[in-house]
Amino acid sequence: MARAALTWLVEPGHRAVWTLVRRLGAPEALDRLLADDVPDRHLRAAVAARSAAGDARQMAAEAMERAQEAGARLVVPADAEWPARVDALASLELDSGMRVNRDTRPPLCFWVRGDRPLGPTLERSVAIVGARASTGYGTHVTNELAYGLAEQGWAVVSGGAYGIDAAAHRAALAANGVTVSVLACGVDRPYPIMNSEMFAQIAERGLLISEWPPGAEPLRHRFLIRNRVIAAATAGTVVVEAAARSGATQTMSRVLALNRPGMVVPGPVTSAMSVGCHELLRKHPGARLVTSVADVLEEVGRIGEYLEPAPRGRERVRDRLDEESALVLESLPRRGTATPEEIAAEARLDLRTVLRRLSLLEAAGLVVRTDSGIALTPPRPVVT
Amino acid sequence: MARAALTWLVEPGHRAVWTLVRRLGAPEALDRLLADDVPDRHLRAAVAARSAAGDARQMAAEAMERAQEAGARLVVPADAEWPARVDALASLELDSGMRVNRDTRPPLCFWVRGDRPLGPTLERSVAIVGARASTGYGTHVTNELAYGLAEQGWAVVSGGAYGIDAAAHRAALAANGVTVSVLACGVDRPYPIMNSEMFAQIAERGLLISEWPPGAEPLRHRFLIRNRVIAAATAGTVVVEAAARSGATQTMSRVLALNRPGMVVPGPVTSAMSVGCHELLRKHPGARLVTSVADVLEEVGRIGEYLEPAPRGRERVRDRLDEESALVLESLPRRGTATPEEIAAEARLDLRTVLRRLSLLEAAGLVVRTDSGIALTPPRPVVT
Repeated sequence: MARAALTWLVEPGHRAVWTLVRRLGAPEALDRLLADDVPDRHLRAAVAARSAAGDARQMAAEAMERAQEAGARLVVPADAEWPARVDALASLELDSGMRVNRDTRPPLCFWVRGDRPLGPTLERSVAIVGARASTGYGTHVTNELAYGLAEQGWAVVSGGAYGIDAAAHRAALAANGVTVSVLACGVDRPYPIMNSEMFAQIAERGLLISEWPPGAEPLRHRFLIRNRVIAAATAGTVVVEAAARSGATQTMSRVLALNRPGMVVPGPVTSAMSVGCHELLRKHPGARLVTSVADVLEEVGRIGEYLEPAPRGRERVRDRLDEESALVLESLPRRGTATPEEIAAEARLDLRTVLRRLSLLEAAGLVVRTDSGIALTPPRPVVT
Repeated sequence: MARAALTWLVEPGHRAVWTLVRRLGAPEALDRLLADDVPDRHLRAAVAARSAAGDARQMAAEAMERAQEAGARLVVPADAEWPARVDALASLELDSGMRVNRDTRPPLCFWVRGDRPLGPTLERSVAIVGARASTGYGTHVTNELAYGLAEQGWAVVSGGAYGIDAAAHRAALAANGVTVSVLACGVDRPYPIMNSEMFAQIAERGLLISEWPPGAEPLRHRFLIRNRVIAAATAGTVVVEAAARSGATQTMSRVLALNRPGMVVPGPVTSAMSVGCHELLRKHPGARLVTSVADVLEEVGRIGEYLEPAPRGRERVRDRLDEESALVLESLPRRGTATPEEIAAEARLDLRTVLRRLSLLEAAGLVVRTDSGIALTPPRPVVT
C-alpha cells in the first residue's frame, strides 16, 4: 500500500526516493516524505504540491479500487513475478551531455493488467520502438520483425503509441504471440485512446503495465521516464524509425548504458524518419545494425541464457546454419573439447566471431560448454 | 618500356612479379620472366602461355604507339606524378576466409589519359562505388554525395561501370569537378562502351587510368584486381548500393585492410541493393555509416592532412559548426594552449570525440597544434 501511495505521490525513477525506499523500506519512506522529513528541497516541494491535491494514502486506496475494477494488480519486488531485470537501473549512469538525468532509478512497483506472470513473460522479450509518424517502410519492417519474433516465442514489448509501437503490438497479436505494452499512464485508461481496441486485445492476451497508478494521466514527461523501463525490462531493444533526437533515441541511450543489445534498423538516408536511426549507428559504437529477425536473434543470443534450444531436429538446424557457424561447428573435435582460441585457429576466424557463433550454436543446442572447453552436443534422437 | 611489357605479360598485382621487380628492377625482372628463370611454376606457365600469343617487348612498343594515338602516357614510380598512396598495397594482407589472395601488390605503372598530374589529383580524392543495377534511391544519393564532394574540391574516383559508378562520375562532372575513372581495360577503349560519351568528358576534364596497356580487354577477373587500386589510391571509399558479396563489398574489404576510411550508405532493409551495404556495416566494425557529404568529410578528415582550410571567413565557419565541435572550440582557453585531455574534461566529451573534432577544427583553420598543445588560431582579417 505504501508503494501504491508512492506511485501517486512522486514520479517514478526518482533517485532520492528510490534510495530512501531501499534504505528504510517503503512504509517508512512514505512516512518521512509525508512528514516533510527529507533533505532534498526540491523533493519536499514536489511532495507538498502533490499532497495539496489529495491525501496519498487515500489516493492509494482509490487506485487499488480502480485497479480491481479494471482487473489490474499491483506487483512489487517481493512478488515472485517481479521482473528482476529492471533492477539493473539501480546502477544506470547516463552522461547525456551537460544534464544529469535524475529519473533513472528502478521502478518501485508495477500496475499490471493481463493474466500472464510479469517476470517470466519479460524474460524472453524484445522491445520494438520507434516513431509515431512512421512511414510505410517502417511499418512494414516492424510487421516483419514483430511477427517473426512473436512466432518464435519472444514477447514483443513496446509503448502503445501510434506508428511503430502500435505496429509492433499488432503484428505480435497477429502472430498469436505475446505482447507487452509499457504505459506512461494508468493501465485502466491506456493512451492513446484511438488504440483502445488494441489495448483491449493486449490486456486479453498479453500485458498492459505501468508504474503510474490507475487513473494517472499520460503527461508528456512521463514518456521519457517510462522509456527506461522498456530498455531495462527486455533482453534487447530494436529502434525501427526515429526522427533526430526523439524518444526512441533516448530509449536507446538507456539500452546501451545498461549494456543490453541495442539494435537499429537503417533506412533510406533520404527519410527524415531514419535520421535518428543513422545518428544512433554513427554515434554509438555499441548500437548494432539489424535487418531481419535472424539479425535480432543473433544479438539477443549474445545473452545466451534467454535462448532455448531450437525446436527443430539437429540435422535441420545444421542445414540452415550460416557459413561461419558451420565452419565453427566443423572445427570442433569429434570427441573431447576445444578452447575458443583453438577453434578460432582451426576455423581461421577471429576469436570474436567464434565466440559469437558459439553462443548461437550453444543456444541452438549444437554445442555444450564444459569445464575443459567446448564440445559437440552428444547425439540424441532426432524429432522431425 | 620494361614495365609496359610487364603490364602485357602478367596480370597486375601479382605478388611474385612485384617482388621480383622490387628486388631486381623492371628490366632484369622482365629478362628473367622471358628467360623462364623464375621459381614459381604457375607464373612460368602463365608467362609461357602469354608469350605464345606475342613478343612482350614488341607488344609494349605497340601499346606505346596506341597510347600516343589515344593521348595517353605511362606513369611509373620514378615519375613525380606517381600516386605514392597506392604503394601501401605492398603490405596489404587479406584474410578472406580460406583463400589467400595473390593479386594484391602495388601497380607497376599506370596508363593515363587526361592532363592533370595523377598523384596530386588523387591526393584529395574519395572513391564512390556501388552496384551496377542501382535503384533510383542509390542514384539519387550518389548524385548528392559526388556533386557535393566535387563542389568542395575533392576528386571523385570510381570504376566507370553502369549504375552507381557512372552516377558518381557524372555528378562530379556536373559540379564542374574532377573525376577519375580507374579502368580494368585499356584507357583507349574504356568499358562499358555505352558510357563512351562520359569517358570522353572524363578524359577531357579528369583522368582515365588503368594498369592494363592500351588495347587490353575488360576481362571479368580484372575488375576485382582493379578494385584494390580504387581502395588504395583514395583518401576514403564510399559504397552506396551493393548486393550481397559483390564487387563493392570486395573493394571495401581492401579499404578496411588498408586502414583507410571505409564508408557505407545504408538503405531500406527491403532493398536487395542495400543487402551488401548492411552486411558490411554488420560484419566490419571499421566500416562507418555515412548519410551525407558532411559525414564523408568527417571520415576523410580523420586524415586531416588532406583537408585544406575552409574557404569561408572564420565567423561563417563557426556559425555552421555542429554542437560537439562548437563545444570543443569553446573549451579552449582564450590564450595559451590546452591538451586534448584537458579539452575533453572541460567539454565533458570523450577523448575520441575531442580528437576527431580537433582534426576537423584544425582542417577548418580554427585551431592550431603547437608543441605545447592545442590553441585557437590567432585572429586574422575575415574575408566575407
